[in-house]
Amino acid sequence: MKIAALAGGIGAARFLVGLRAAVPEAEVTVIGNTGDDISLHGLRVCPDLDTVMYTLGGGISAARGWGREDETFAVQDELAAYGVGPAWFGLGDRDLATHLVRTEMLAAGYALSAVTAALCERWKPGVTLLPMSDDRVETHVVLAGDDRRAIHFQEWWLRLHAGSPAESIIPVGAEDAKPAPGVLEAIAAADVVLFPPSNPVVSIGTILAVPGIADAVRTGGAPVVGVSPIIGGAPVRGMADACLTAIGVETTAAAVAAHYGARAAGGLLDGWLVDTADADTAAAAPGGVTVVARPLFMTDVTATAAIARAALELAGV
Amino acid sequence: MKIAALAGGIGAARFLVGLRAAVPEAEVTVIGNTGDDISLHGLRVCPDLDTVMYTLGGGISAARGWGREDETFAVQDELAAYGVGPAWFGLGDRDLATHLVRTEMLAAGYALSAVTAALCERWKPGVTLLPMSDDRVETHVVLAGDDRRAIHFQEWWLRLHAGSPAESIIPVGAEDAKPAPGVLEAIAAADVVLFPPSNPVVSIGTILAVPGIADAVRTGGAPVVGVSPIIGGAPVRGMADACLTAIGVETTAAAVAAHYGARAAGGLLDGWLVDTADADTAAAAPGGVTVVARPLFMTDVTATAAIARAALELAGV
Repeated sequence: MKIAALAGGIGAARFLVGLRAAVPEAEVTVIGNTGDDISLHGLRVCPDLDTVMYTLGGGISAARGWGREDETFAVQDELAAYGVGPAWFGLGDRDLATHLVRTEMLAAGYALSAVTAALCERWKPGVTLLPMSDDRVETHVVLAGDDRRAIHFQEWWLRLHAGSPAESIIPVGAEDAKPAPGVLEAIAAADVVLFPPSNPVVSIGTILAVPGIADAVRTGGAPVVGVSPIIGGAPVRGMADACLTAIGVETTAAAVAAHYGARAAGGLLDGWLVDTADADTAAAAPGGVTVVARPLFMTDVTATAAIARAALELAGV
Repeated sequence: MKIAALAGGIGAARFLVGLRAAVPEAEVTVIGNTGDDISLHGLRVCPDLDTVMYTLGGGISAARGWGREDETFAVQDELAAYGVGPAWFGLGDRDLATHLVRTEMLAAGYALSAVTAALCERWKPGVTLLPMSDDRVETHVVLAGDDRRAIHFQEWWLRLHAGSPAESIIPVGAEDAKPAPGVLEAIAAADVVLFPPSNPVVSIGTILAVPGIADAVRTGGAPVVGVSPIIGGAPVRGMADACLTAIGVETTAAAVAAHYGARAAGGLLDGWLVDTADADTAAAAPGGVTVVARPLFMTDVTATAAIARAALELAGV
């Protein structure tokens, strides 16, 4: 079985661990969001790609869900002693080595997809991890209010904790970006396309903003099943509610399904897996989307594998 | 009193601590060697400038004499896990922050002298630390033997421990380099110019290879006094003997004095401070160079301050 999955960070990474456990023989291609990428101290940092890579490769901090286990922060502390920030982005020493290798390879002319493959040679995540694009896309947030200042998504997310309302969220560069090599091919060859429980706006939405990707999902031969990141009217983690509000979508499983839309009606979804708390979503979901309710809290690998199996069953594969 | 000192790494840094203790009121300008600089993982590393800055700023590893106290090596260990070397260059986590700040400032267009001044804002070394040049000079070593391969000085020094004979030692780029802003001015304004006990070839020699610097020392109004880095026919630390052999100079205090030459005869030195073990150097030294013998082992700050005072006395200042 061939699976293509669009992926943000922590939620997607944990889901993919369950998916790998559920169908260890499947060929999984993960199409990762790079809109969260940021340049810090001259280094190219790809938080979502690294979260997926470290999580599937066994190097993730279990407690934090991002960054490396047994991490230290000597470099960041020293940078602060030089008066160099930002303090709001946690840049660990072990993690930093990844960014050094990536930045040097990019400077040498390698594409991000080639760099990601090289990094994965060490981590052996058991999936093919592709960036959504080798072109630079950077999500910026235009703050609501008088100054309408645009800031990097990470500053909004980490420094402001998404607490300052966004007027709009813009994946800068997306319209001119091309899908990375293998992305459209993986979607076309897939037996099923999955949307893990990632942020519908700044993770899945950003990937879908790269021209060609949404069309490939929409018009491909494979069924498309999403796992709701919203349970009982709130995001399971992160601040997806603030992102959804910015694009005028309610923070409910049903509203997110309606936002994606039914493939039968020119949208993206065939199936939508919601939590048992949202079983009533079936009635509110758009026509043409089959809704199934199952426990969606990814409490451990066993529970997460069950969620993945439910998504595959819903897809009929 | 204004003092200009040419400086390599560990030996010079320790001497300068003694000099600062001996004449705390003096205005000291340190002209640092940058020929040892190396780019690692895309970062610009300036070992000699940093050794002087950390030593005078209280951040040096007392045990190693280079790099930071309480250092960790998480980044380098991780780079090794990616298969990225070299292992022979010790790149600590704390130290790395310095290289990140430097590299980003250089990339932003600041000159190395401006970057060094910015880094010194934190370390407050109590001297004005200048790189010999803002232009890139990189010391390469041509190995003797059949392949005559040229390698970076640091590879020869750290990986080969200078154990593979050098056919020649070339400060690549020196002939086109200009002295950094303030270098010639500091020499012209000095009441005394000092050569601390640094490597005569790859430290002092490299600085003097930047067009204009040797002339300024040679023709300036200030007396020039050197402190021998050779005691009893051997370098006090490092492998200066291998460097001296490469340029056909014996590893003796007298031969190094002769290599520098007497200012009176178009050379560089007025005075040459040697260890008591080399008191006989006076007879062998070139005419016009006043030789004084004193204990030169820099065992502690008190002993080192006495050496600095002896050098200033020899200069008559």
